[in-house]
Parts: sequence; structure tokens; C-alpha cells
Amino acid sequence: MRVFSGSTRIEAVAPDDRGLAYGDGLFETMRAARGEVPWWDAHCERLQAGVRRLGMVLPDIGLLRAEAAALLAGDDAVLKLIVTRGSDGRGYAPELTATPTSVLSRHPLPPTPPAAGIALRWCATRLALQPALAGIKHCNRLEQVLARAEWNDPAAADRDAFDGLMCSTEGDVVCATAANLFVLKNGRWSTPTVDRCGVAGVCRAWAKAALDAEETRLDVTDVETADAVFLCNAVRGILPVARLGARQWLPHPQVAALRAQLASNHPAFIA
Amino acid sequence: MRVFSGSTRIEAVAPDDRGLAYGDGLFETMRAARGEVPWWDAHCERLQAGVRRLGMVLPDIGLLRAEAAALLAGDDAVLKLIVTRGSDGRGYAPELTATPTSVLSRHPLPPTPPAAGIALRWCATRLALQPALAGIKHCNRLEQVLARAEWNDPAAADRDAFDGLMCSTEGDVVCATAANLFVLKNGRWSTPTVDRCGVAGVCRAWAKAALDAEETRLDVTDVETADAVFLCNAVRGILPVARLGARQWLPHPQVAALRAQLASNHPAFIA
Repeated sequence: MRVFSGSTRIEAVAPDDRGLAYGDGLFETMRAARGEVPWWDAHCERLQAGVRRLGMVLPDIGLLRAEAAALLAGDDAVLKLIVTRGSDGRGYAPELTATPTSVLSRHPLPPTPPAAGIALRWCATRLALQPALAGIKHCNRLEQVLARAEWNDPAAADRDAFDGLMCSTEGDVVCATAANLFVLKNGRWSTPTVDRCGVAGVCRAWAKAALDAEETRLDVTDVETADAVFLCNAVRGILPVARLGARQWLPHPQVAALRAQLASNHPAFIA
Repeated sequence: MRVFSGSTRIEAVAPDDRGLAYGDGLFETMRAARGEVPWWDAHCERLQAGVRRLGMVLPDIGLLRAEAAALLAGDDAVLKLIVTRGSDGRGYAPELTATPTSVLSRHPLPPTPPAAGIALRWCATRLALQPALAGIKHCNRLEQVLARAEWNDPAAADRDAFDGLMCSTEGDVVCATAANLFVLKNGRWSTPTVDRCGVAGVCRAWAKAALDAEETRLDVTDVETADAVFLCNAVRGILPVARLGARQWLPHPQVAALRAQLASNHPAFIA
């Protein structure tokens, strides 16, 4: 774990950091292969989009890349970067030139999901519609925390589900708690828009281009009647979905082909 | 500033604290008079409501009260308490028994607002509808940060406004960025409901009882045509509103009477 205030390495995050006070920050979760982060540029572009939206100062990306390389030390790992607005006194009013705080941390790779595909459930927690925050990967994630807490209910169905799908408060299906969603219907791939809630995932952008998928609003029936479904994120890649509640899907050749394509594009995802 | 993991005093907040990662926590901002916090119990009740809602562990309130007293050292000050879910590894899934992190800090009293009343503006940033998080004082506050950032636009009107009123994404008026709202119409006081967004303020509860005010949905016209308007929060007490955009109000005897009643109830608010 390495913490920086601007470009100065510091021992710890200040207790008055606005990340802690208000979730006033952004994060990226990346997959590293042999110490390299193949999607580094895409993650930094999204980070920059978030910085612009929140009116923050971008930290020195070159410094962070060098520090990330030192932290990774040539290994396969998950790399997490949090960038907050730093400390600038009490109150919501942001200081637009505040020195940002950056936290780099490495984590073990997650276990490989089942080859036959993952099981999903529906989350009861809904995503609020907030266009001002949609798409970026900000640190206000209590909705995802509450959705994930639903697994803790001993009476809950599908407690072994790998992830859960979340709908917006208007009922359209948006994403899983920690992944984007793609569905195949009538020979065409689509993924939910993330203009009102949800995150514009780095792997989502890759898959959208690879499949020439359209962005659209999907309802529950669209998902349940799809011919194939997968989740994706930058840490796990393409995750074929085998079950959603009572609905089951057999492995689909197009999803297998996409996984193979990702493996050939991104060394972390070689099976 | 004092930081605790459970009941153990620690040097600093861990960089993997979930407060920093996800805004996964709660806070209270309190006014102390001569080292005492007259509304301590009300703040703790709201904190407990938040802890229940988020499925967190409540820290030792008795310990925090003693530490707060030591930090205040008999002074008039603002006391802030942040309670997060602590550190329990990466990923949204919360550990419901995680040891909470508590941060106590003291701050100078804010300047006294103008005696003739404050000026308000309308914020363009809207509050999303999220019943699962409404009412509690959680740490996902990017909407308030964005609303307050509107003051930084050199072209913005009313840059000298003390605070701004925020509407929900459905258009009803909810609150100011850092205070609750009361309006007088046809001899009856009312304050917006906080069941879909907004915070159930400690001073709001006091004023609601004192005025026998009703909770209701208010639209922009309701506010602009009101006979009197005030904001309130636990740090500043009752704040008469003199202006909202082009609309002006003369001081109202009922607001003055409420301020006097608060001053007689709460020693921090003696004029």
C-alpha cells in the first residue's frame, strides 16, 4: 500500500480527508499481468473523466504508474487506485485546487469462476437515478454495499450467487454490483446505458467495441428472455452467466469466442 | 483529532478503510457549549438509526462521549464524529461484524450569520431518490459537494448566497446543501419529507416539534410564495431567510420567537 498527497509519499491518509468524510473521490480496480497493467490507459481515461466531472485535480499519472510498477514487482495481481480530493477543511464546498490524495494497493487475484458459468440473483436494492454521477467510478458506493449485504440474510434465495443484477429505481436493469451486463437478443448484443446510473466499465467498453453492441435500456424480461448473458469487468474479464434465478443458459459459442478474443488481446485473461 | 478502531485509539485511519473506499460510514456534526453537547442523545439516536440501516457495528458511545469531552476541554466548538465500517478487505460485500472506525474532531464555531437573515440560491444539482439511504447521515455526499461546487462558477448568480436549496430529481424541494428547510404558509409550518432523499436533521426534529410542523412535499412555488422561510441545522440553529433569488422576506415574528425558544432550550444558541 502506498499513499501520496500530490506527488509526496505520506505515511497515512489524513483523518480529515474528504474521501473519508464524503466519499469525495474516484477509484480504479485493475488487473496486472507480470507487473504490467494492459488496460492502464483506459483506466486513466476514465479517472480523468471523473476528475473533470467532480472538479478535482488529477494526480501525476506518470508517478503513479512508476509506483504501481514498483508495487506490482512483476507479479500477477489486482491493483487498486483511489484518488480523493484530499483535505481542505470541513464543509461540502470543494476547493477546486486541493492537492489530491492517492492510494495504491495490490491484492491477490480472485479465484477463477466456474467454467460452466456463474449464477446470478436479482438484488432488491435499486440504483438511484443521478445523471451527474452516472458513468464515473466515484467513491459513493453505499448502494452497492447494501445490495451486497442482501447475501447476508440467511433467508435469502441464491446465497451462493456470484453476483446480483441491480435495477434502477425506475425498473430498468443496469448492471451487477461489480460488473457490467451484456445480453444477446435476436442476434444482437446490447448493454444497458449508464447515463443515469451505473459505471462505464473498462471491460464494458472493450466488449462493446468487440461485439458492436448497442447501448439501450433493458427491462427484466429482456434479460430473462435473452439467448445469452454475460458479465464483465476489468479484473475478471468475461463471465458467462449460466443461471439467473430459475432461468438457465447453456454455454454460448459467441461468449466463448469473445473470451478467446479477450485472451488474445490481454495477457491477464489467457485461460 | 482522535481516531479509534473499535475502542482502541489508533494513530491514523487505515488506507483500506471502507469509509475511504466507498463512503461506507456515517457522521454527525454537533455544537458544543462549554464542552457539553446538549443534543448528544439526539445525534446518537440518529447515528444508531444509520448503523441499523447500513448493518454496521455501533462503536462504544460512552467511550466516544468521554473522548469528546476531553477533546472539547470545556470550550465552545463544533464537534464532528465519523463512524465507518472499518477495514474488512476489498469488495462491496460488507462484514456485518467489522470493527468500526471512529474519528472525533473539533473545529472552531462558524461566524455568526447576518442578523437580518441569510440569502439563498437554487442549486442546479438534484438529489437522487434513494429511499434506502434517505434520512440517515451517511458519508455518500457527492451530490452536496457538486451542489456546493456551483458557487465556484464565476458566471453563477448569487455567489454570495449563504446556502442553496436543492430539489430532488422529481422537482420537489428537499433541503439546503447543509441544512433543513421550513416554510410558513396559511399560518401552518411545514418541512419537506426526507423519505426519498435528504437528511432527518437533529435541529429539524426539534423545530418540527416546537412548531407542530407537518412533513410534506413542497414544490418551488410553495417555497417562493411562503410567508416566512428558515433553514436549520445542529451547528447554526435557526437561520431566518431574507432572500431567495429575487424573492425577499422581512423578519417574521414567529421565526424570531422560535430562535428565542431555541436559545432558552440550548445554551449554545443564546444570542
